[in-house]
Amino acid sequence: MAYLPKSVQKVIEEFQRLPGVGSKSAARMAYHYIRSSNHDAARLADALREMDEKVVNCAKCYNVAEKEVCDICSYELRDASKLCIVEEPLDVVAFESSSIFNGLYFVIGGVISPADGIGPEELRFSELQKRVKELIGEGEQKDADYKLEIIIATNPSLEGEATANHVEEVLQTQLKAGKAKITRLATGLPTGADLEYADRLTLKRALDGRR
Amino acid sequence: MAYLPKSVQKVIEEFQRLPGVGSKSAARMAYHYIRSSNHDAARLADALREMDEKVVNCAKCYNVAEKEVCDICSYELRDASKLCIVEEPLDVVAFESSSIFNGLYFVIGGVISPADGIGPEELRFSELQKRVKELIGEGEQKDADYKLEIIIATNPSLEGEATANHVEEVLQTQLKAGKAKITRLATGLPTGADLEYADRLTLKRALDGRR
Repeated sequence: MAYLPKSVQKVIEEFQRLPGVGSKSAARMAYHYIRSSNHDAARLADALREMDEKVVNCAKCYNVAEKEVCDICSYELRDASKLCIVEEPLDVVAFESSSIFNGLYFVIGGVISPADGIGPEELRFSELQKRVKELIGEGEQKDADYKLEIIIATNPSLEGEATANHVEEVLQTQLKAGKAKITRLATGLPTGADLEYADRLTLKRALDGRR
Repeated sequence: MAYLPKSVQKVIEEFQRLPGVGSKSAARMAYHYIRSSNHDAARLADALREMDEKVVNCAKCYNVAEKEVCDICSYELRDASKLCIVEEPLDVVAFESSSIFNGLYFVIGGVISPADGIGPEELRFSELQKRVKELIGEGEQKDADYKLEIIIATNPSLEGEATANHVEEVLQTQLKAGKAKITRLATGLPTGADLEYADRLTLKRALDGRR
């Protein structure tokens, strides 16, 4: 792309780093900013800079935040007897945007995937242990019968399963003491799906989990 | 999306301005930049700022450039007897990336589209007239028989046709004087297309233009 001005080339290269964005889409994005008369490019640049400077991980759930403890963890009306373990911050967005869950979250930071060289030590298992102990401690002060429900919401993939199993191992002590229980998201047919096109495993799980 | 930090929300909003980017893709893009450990966000911000400051329209062809006259217009080995008229700078990218054309370009700036309130006065017809006169003048100095070929490469849409017709009108004088001729990109079946799925007009044009 030697025929492109260097500064344009650089923007296209940066956009191409985005997952799923090829050279044509990247060029289209860059040219959108060139065409726009109201300094969209400068506005995006400012927004990116600000985000880069302000965003940190919440010290409790490791979701994205602008303060030490995020709005969800610090909101008193959230149900502290439910802790939903997700892989990535985007999964929190999925739950929150559908407003179906009023508990707390914990972002484990990915999945165990030996093929990609990601073992348990790459994820936040020790932080999870600490957080679970903390929640149980706080819960018991308010209510002697407090029991923490840990909802594992990793993706229904092999790696997601392995990660879920490791969560269980790591929390043995709390589970055995009856201070916590583990639940998993249901697997089965997604709403609106066509039985005809469902894969074997989805169908098997839908059958196994029939109510 | 009140559950998102403000700075993240702002970046998502900015990305959503991109054509074809919905709220989910925009969120995915923003989170890509949050996740990236090597300050991708800051790099993109810098690149955008630089582009916003440096990029201007070439004074001759109105393509994007960082100098008054772009690299293509100022390169002496390009064939100055061919002027390809395109709608947008991205169309120049399409030609240049396939290295099938060695002439010059002129970016007319869109198409005539009464439905969108875009008349000929919104496009660069007077600039085109000036540029054609200039090229003919320069050409005649080098070669008395010089004749400029104007290749109209607007999109094969109704608006593209209207724009092409207006180019012809505007350049009447030069055409009548035999100093310029107008050609058009061929229309017909795209390579790899399936006859079965071709629309009526494409098929008609492919038949009319048979060789």
